[in-house]
Amino acid sequence: MYKHILFATELNETKSYIEDKVAQLQQFTKAKLSIIHVVEPLPNVYYGGALGVVPGPDPIGSLGNTKLLEERAKEVLQPLANRLNRTEQNLHISIGHISEEILAFAEHENVDLIITGSHGIHGFRLLLGSTANAILHGAKCDVLAVRYKE
Amino acid sequence: MYKHILFATELNETKSYIEDKVAQLQQFTKAKLSIIHVVEPLPNVYYGGALGVVPGPDPIGSLGNTKLLEERAKEVLQPLANRLNRTEQNLHISIGHISEEILAFAEHENVDLIITGSHGIHGFRLLLGSTANAILHGAKCDVLAVRYKE
Repeated sequence: MYKHILFATELNETKSYIEDKVAQLQQFTKAKLSIIHVVEPLPNVYYGGALGVVPGPDPIGSLGNTKLLEERAKEVLQPLANRLNRTEQNLHISIGHISEEILAFAEHENVDLIITGSHGIHGFRLLLGSTANAILHGAKCDVLAVRYKE
Repeated sequence: MYKHILFATELNETKSYIEDKVAQLQQFTKAKLSIIHVVEPLPNVYYGGALGVVPGPDPIGSLGNTKLLEERAKEVLQPLANRLNRTEQNLHISIGHISEEILAFAEHENVDLIITGSHGIHGFRLLLGSTANAILHGAKCDVLAVRYKE
């Protein structure tokens, strides 16, 4: 049915119902399973000052902060990969625009199903994720959008 | 994994790769499977005249035409239901706004996965279907969008 499933994960979903569905679909299809998480680079500005709103040069450097995010992602994703019986080769952390990186990986690696959360929490609201939306619009393969459980 | 799958079908997909995926997912999950097709009511105008562009009152009546579409849908969908081992009870033909009818059915019947084609052919172009888009935005359950094979 599917030969290569790509689980596009945000860090906040890693211990959840989405993971269970990914595991079951992989077992059912015997597909290769890859996991991708995309870190968006931080802008090179620093919102400091008394009111927290004065932009200036980032004293740490955006590259440094992005690197920290990448390290943090690895810490969270490695246990996820283990739970899904994946090795480090199946785990991909990219830096860039989220949906573009996911779609590029999917196309390059002949992915035939992308699994992603459909909604994200923005403040107190549950909204259709812009990532899910962009993936659905751009994917050349099937997309399973898993609804966030409230 | 899933307990009630809803296959939202357009008539042009009925003999296809989407059907195979629906069948396999149903077998895997042992879920109840419902099939829905929505007929959009025709507007009560008649585009006749020498150039085919002059709107006027519909001489047959939009209700009559919509009824014809519904009958036609039944003819195509009954064999589909048979192939998927469904009885007439699992086959639902609604008249109304496509995504609204699908979403209303899904919510009312506790559907936990909607399967639909992701793209439609509009003339010579392959576009993300507005139905798939509306379902993804409005669904309170998971959505599997199956890519049209070119």
